Amino acid sequence: MKQLELNVYLAGEIHTDWRKQIINKSEDMGLNIVFTSPVTDHEASDLCGIRILGEEEKPFWRDRKGADINAIRRLKMIKDAELVVVKFGDEYKQWNAAFDAGYASALNKSLIILHDEKYDHALKEVDAAANATARTPEQVVEILKYVLL
Amino acid sequence: MKQLELNVYLAGEIHTDWRKQIINKSEDMGLNIVFTSPVTDHEASDLCGIRILGEEEKPFWRDRKGADINAIRRLKMIKDAELVVVKFGDEYKQWNAAFDAGYASALNKSLIILHDEKYDHALKEVDAAANATARTPEQVVEILKYVLL
Amino acid sequence: MKQLELNVYLAGEIHTDWRKQIINKSEDMGLNIVFTSPVTDHEASDLCGIRILGEEEKPFWRDRKGADINAIRRLKMIKDAELVVVKFGDEYKQWNAAFDAGYASALNKSLIILHDEKYDHALKEVDAAANATARTPEQVVEILKYVLL
Amino acid sequence: MKQLELNVYLAGEIHTDWRKQIINKSEDMGLNIVFTSPVTDHEASDLCGIRILGEEEKPFWRDRKGADINAIRRLKMIKDAELVVVKFGDEYKQWNAAFDAGYASALNKSLIILHDEKYDHALKEVDAAANATARTPEQVVEILKYVLL
Amino acid sequence: MKQLELNVYLAGEIHTDWRKQIINKSEDMGLNIVFTSPVTDHEASDLCGIRILGEEEKPFWRDRKGADINAIRRLKMIKDAELVVVKFGDEYKQWNAAFDAGYASALNKSLIILHDEKYDHALKEVDAAANATARTPEQVVEILKYVLL
Amino acid sequence: MKQLELNVYLAGEIHTDWRKQIINKSEDMGLNIVFTSPVTDHEASDLCGIRILGEEEKPFWRDRKGADINAIRRLKMIKDAELVVVKFGDEYKQWNAAFDAGYASALNKSLIILHDEKYDHALKEVDAAANATARTPEQVVEILKYVLL
Amino acid sequence: MKQLELNVYLAGEIHTDWRKQIINKSEDMGLNIVFTSPVTDHEASDLCGIRILGEEEKPFWRDRKGADINAIRRLKMIKDAELVVVKFGDEYKQWNAAFDAGYASALNKSLIILHDEKYDHALKEVDAAANATARTPEQVVEILKYVLL
Amino acid sequence: MKQLELNVYLAGEIHTDWRKQIINKSEDMGLNIVFTSPVTDHEASDLCGIRILGEEEKPFWRDRKGADINAIRRLKMIKDAELVVVKFGDEYKQWNAAFDAGYASALNKSLIILHDEKYDHALKEVDAAANATARTPEQVVEILKYVLL
Repeated sequence: MKQLELNVYLAGEIHTDWRKQIINKSEDMGLNIVFTSPVTDHEASDLCGIRILGEEEKPFWRDRKGADINAIRRLKMIKDAELVVVKFGDEYKQWNAAFDAGYASALNKSLIILHDEKYDHALKEVDAAANATARTPEQVVEILKYVLL
Repeated sequence: MKQLELNVYLAGEIHTDWRKQIINKSEDMGLNIVFTSPVTDHEASDLCGIRILGEEEKPFWRDRKGADINAIRRLKMIKDAELVVVKFGDEYKQWNAAFDAGYASALNKSLIILHDEKYDHALKEVDAAANATARTPEQVVEILKYVLL
Repeated sequence: MKQLELNVYLAGEIHTDWRKQIINKSEDMGLNIVFTSPVTDHEASDLCGIRILGEEEKPFWRDRKGADINAIRRLKMIKDAELVVVKFGDEYKQWNAAFDAGYASALNKSLIILHDEKYDHALKEVDAAANATARTPEQVVEILKYVLL
Repeated sequence: MKQLELNVYLAGEIHTDWRKQIINKSEDMGLNIVFTSPVTDHEASDLCGIRILGEEEKPFWRDRKGADINAIRRLKMIKDAELVVVKFGDEYKQWNAAFDAGYASALNKSLIILHDEKYDHALKEVDAAANATARTPEQVVEILKYVLL
Repeated sequence: MKQLELNVYLAGEIHTDWRKQIINKSEDMGLNIVFTSPVTDHEASDLCGIRILGEEEKPFWRDRKGADINAIRRLKMIKDAELVVVKFGDEYKQWNAAFDAGYASALNKSLIILHDEKYDHALKEVDAAANATARTPEQVVEILKYVLL
Repeated sequence: MKQLELNVYLAGEIHTDWRKQIINKSEDMGLNIVFTSPVTDHEASDLCGIRILGEEEKPFWRDRKGADINAIRRLKMIKDAELVVVKFGDEYKQWNAAFDAGYASALNKSLIILHDEKYDHALKEVDAAANATARTPEQVVEILKYVLL
Repeated sequence: MKQLELNVYLAGEIHTDWRKQIINKSEDMGLNIVFTSPVTDHEASDLCGIRILGEEEKPFWRDRKGADINAIRRLKMIKDAELVVVKFGDEYKQWNAAFDAGYASALNKSLIILHDEKYDHALKEVDAAANATARTPEQVVEILKYVLL
Repeated sequence: MKQLELNVYLAGEIHTDWRKQIINKSEDMGLNIVFTSPVTDHEASDLCGIRILGEEEKPFWRDRKGADINAIRRLKMIKDAELVVVKFGDEYKQWNAAFDAGYASALNKSLIILHDEKYDHALKEVDAAANATARTPEQVVEILKYVLL
């Protein structure tokens, strides 16, 4: 049988190296996965709108220009993915991560939510829409490995 | 012409009376709107799962049972709605609010996001997917009134 | 606010009075629900095809004629429903009940599965696709009551 | 003309070698088919949840963790498939097989149901949703060969 | 339980009174059905385009103008219907009837095909996509009655 | 048979009384139609954004705020409609009218385009996606009357 | 720019060599097209059901078994295609050709209908749903060549 | 990680070399993009219908024949694209460009609208449905480069 391939979008937190861990371990195991991610350079992501399309005085519209451009990439990747992994960390509000989880869920994508136990109650609706709540990148990789058995 | 009717789901924060304000003002104006809301009694919402289906030792599964039952109501209401208003307040993580916004967005629902300016940057992806960012319930009602002109 | 209405399809086992229990209790509570069901007269359901369209020698085609006519009703009801309750009992193979659960799940309907604990392992995939696993008709009614709060 | 390719998901019974028979015969005939299957190692499939994400005391949640992870693979494969073959055998309740048939049917996949005549009446709704009821793996391969003529 | 309602589109042959028979008998039985039909006045249907939008020299464009206007009605009715009955008679090519059957089938509508046995082989693909092949309007009404039990 | 009802959205030009003509004549004929329209008060439409949500210095964002609010109404109406009539007149660029036609077409709505012959070549792609090209409001009403025969 | 590729399903008449003409001419021109077709061996197509799955006494069920298997191939090909060419000739009722045209139309496939002028009136609804009415295979090839410019 | 690929349809104005600029700059940067375009030879596009399918006396039907054939290419390309760039220039009515933008928007494609500031007010509804309003081909390329980071 032809080897199964999986398309996985890694959404959410951009300030730790969890994506690299998942990608590296998956490659070490030879898993046949296409990984995609948002632009994880915080400044590049925040400023892409005004850098390309021109400055805005109001922060609100600066953010809008950037968010709209990032959406081209984000929504393409979610649509292409069969599985979306969403990581919730300790910093920031991370509403964009939860938004992506909701978006992916409505499109019937499989979901793995990655977070510490302390957020279990706050993430109960998000976890309930998911196939797994993982605590570590290793667990995510173990799931990927099993799914591609 | 037959009077236009709108179905509006009021998602998000459940600890202030913003829903009541929007509903009351809309009724005062005679707007033809069907409003729906999640169960806003925090305890009833948290405990519905174990109260009906039996206790769980682990908080994780207590939450799961409740979240799964609440999803019956929540997703029905989002699917029925043409417009979803999502309020972000000061307390809690509110990831369920952002999840609902993402879910509604993927279903092509119109969105109004209601929040203070201080959350503008944190909510930029959510606002970018919306038709309006309102600061007060009054502004939401003004939009509803205009839409139903 | 206008009273919420729910459309609920009661699928599965046709040899006990679980439907009547749910419908009666819901009516006693004044719940605003449209209940639908397959034809629960076993003989009428099995024979509808040949009674209307003419006898068949082979049992296989007798069954086909009936199943195809029943599908008109069944699929209309599943499509119209927002919530599908599927009961698994002790008799028969009940593959049609599981088929209906899968069909409803793929259409993103909310699901409640009603069965004894002894079938937990056998129904694990079906339960995992559902919003609740109930053990009694009373629990189903309690969920309906909560959802319509 | 470019050679036609078919994506076929082999669902259902995991305790006989029917999958191997279909795959081997198809390869012998040079048919251009991508076959996919659930994880057919019964123990691996049952235990994947707790092995990766940690033990559960209650069998119900042990099963849930496993079923949710298996669903990532199962639903990806059903969505990718153009034709789903579902085998019903003699052991177990096989409600997951019927669930998969219903799920695939709602997504408009072509279906072949493989089972003995003794289950004809019990499977009449499932057979009625299918393109063919086959009795042997050989017949399935003959259909595949014809479809790829 | 609230009485079930069905929306039925009566497609195909317009030169016998089969529609009237089905509608009258259904009304006599008190069946709760909304019936819709194409415009069955042959001349009105053929000429609507040029009568409203102006004459055309070429018969091809005369037909186009009419067919395009009729499609507004036809496609609305098929989309609104849950069940489409398609009658094939003895006159004309009736390709529009077969087109409507294919269109309805792709939209997952239930189908009843009404025709004499002599057309069984010619209509085998159409019948195979349908829930029933009826020979008389009475049989169609019997099916409707059963479905609305 | 129950009287057919039609939902018609009247898009495009807002500076002549073509909508009133169509609505009045339809009412005179007793046609069973729900008509909807964008807000046709040019100033109210242009300024709704800044009036409700606060002034903007840049005209670009003033327009954005208004267009986003108008989209709530416009897209609801297009989605609710079964038939969209789009009028192209002599003033302004009318790109929003053509956008609405494209949007409606992708949602498989029936379309009537209303315009003078002088725009035939410029509107050839739009007309080709439509069921009729009408020259006068009277012709539109004649089509509506025929469709509701 | 990367060379455009087109997937074209050749439906309808199977008793003349129109498919070969289109395919050969397209290959001579180096057009980048994947052509698919139903099984065009009349006997193989009619008998596939009983040859593989066993004889039936009644012609109706013989035809059903064959039509159901052919549908696996036909519907896969229509779903994969971006353009469906449907040829109507002089023999047989060709209701399956019209059914395929309706099915493809409901799935928003582009359509070319190939037939003599004498069938213009009978095919007016089918032609109205199509992008072109061609009279010869050469015209079909010219359209394909233009589309792939 | 595998290099991201993007499918981009370049719609709208055909009388300046903006497409060539975007394609050349993208190639210089090594961006992994499949670009598609309508037939940009004005005469070939206008006359394709009558050249292939035969002359028409009325300009209206000449245009129809051509527009219908062009739609095969245009709609295929929009459906295949993940991002649609629509350029509005100074000549012609450009209603087809706005139609394509509306069509793409309803299919949830990402959109970049390319135009001078003088059209900001006239294009406000179109811009509001887009991810970016660019003023130069360079800005479009910068967005493409960022999206493919």
